[in-house]
Amino acid sequence: MPLSASLFFTFDGIDGTGKSTQARLFAEWLESRGHDVVQCRDPGSTELGEQIRSILLTHSSLTIGSRSETLLYMAARAQLVEEVIQPALSSGKAVVSDRFLLANVVYQAHAGGLDAPQVWQVGAFATSGMQPLRTYLLDLDVELAASRLKGDADRMERRGTKYFEAVRNGFLTEASQQPDRIAIIDARHSIDEIQLAIRQDAEKLGA
Amino acid sequence: MPLSASLFFTFDGIDGTGKSTQARLFAEWLESRGHDVVQCRDPGSTELGEQIRSILLTHSSLTIGSRSETLLYMAARAQLVEEVIQPALSSGKAVVSDRFLLANVVYQAHAGGLDAPQVWQVGAFATSGMQPLRTYLLDLDVELAASRLKGDADRMERRGTKYFEAVRNGFLTEASQQPDRIAIIDARHSIDEIQLAIRQDAEKLGA
Repeated sequence: MPLSASLFFTFDGIDGTGKSTQARLFAEWLESRGHDVVQCRDPGSTELGEQIRSILLTHSSLTIGSRSETLLYMAARAQLVEEVIQPALSSGKAVVSDRFLLANVVYQAHAGGLDAPQVWQVGAFATSGMQPLRTYLLDLDVELAASRLKGDADRMERRGTKYFEAVRNGFLTEASQQPDRIAIIDARHSIDEIQLAIRQDAEKLGA
Repeated sequence: MPLSASLFFTFDGIDGTGKSTQARLFAEWLESRGHDVVQCRDPGSTELGEQIRSILLTHSSLTIGSRSETLLYMAARAQLVEEVIQPALSSGKAVVSDRFLLANVVYQAHAGGLDAPQVWQVGAFATSGMQPLRTYLLDLDVELAASRLKGDADRMERRGTKYFEAVRNGFLTEASQQPDRIAIIDARHSIDEIQLAIRQDAEKLGA
């Protein structure tokens, strides 16, 4: 079975769209259909990845440029693929990841000023060319997403609405360029309705 | 002045060839000729770079795959270029670095099994295409280099002579492919003789 046909699903979108909740519910559904499921988050889910995650998310005192930041995400992802995703898929398990390479391209290139094709290229090296069968892009108006974040809203406000508009547009641009790989999911609907749409799509893919 | 003509010199080679000593003496010579000189080491020389260096060099308890390892070196290098090398060259200073991208290509690709052109490509992203004016490759027989390492010889023995032969050959292969950029320096000579050969070359480059 070619790797591209393996049950590797990723969830992405701006914060506040409910992607982590949807990823968890989707993993439960896959399990209910008899699949062994490995859930992970990118960056994270390996010891190295968690160390890198803590460098990236708590670096207020540390200077990290945009290329360096991108490469740290890539290093975490390379380890995630080699240590978790690749072995799981090879043994016939399904994998559900909260974020993956797409987020790196969108945040650091579309919204961060780097060149998107170059970030995809570095990503191809990091992942050995491994790509998800489908990425579910949870799409929501930025103001609405911010209002759902409550306690975390500070973080969003600090960077400004304009930045997150650029992130949202970056996700939508990538989705329009890769319609077979990235499915746009309207996140204004209820949790159950969104999950149903995702499951119906995955079922068509053989999940 | 185009960046490629800036006084950016790097020193490389297997451990035990005396490259760090030669880099220091060379920096002193540049200063004696009136240049402001910034010395650095790769990985390192930034706060992030030193954190990454400590992850890389003390990771006996941590699993790091070869792609992830490469990307960590690249992240440290991206920060080094942005925070140290680029600003120094832009303000007319000379830069002398102990190791740079070439080492990454040689250790992780030629000796580590990754694809050399791909590692160069990721390197071009990390460095924004910044390349040294000249790399001095200190070349020495592997057994002789090991005998000079004394206390550090353990580390070399752990990986085996064969591995370091592959590293040495990798350096020589790259030098043969980029004769204008990489100068092979015979490290069997005395410290003074080696330094003289390097200075004569640098003088021709306008240092």
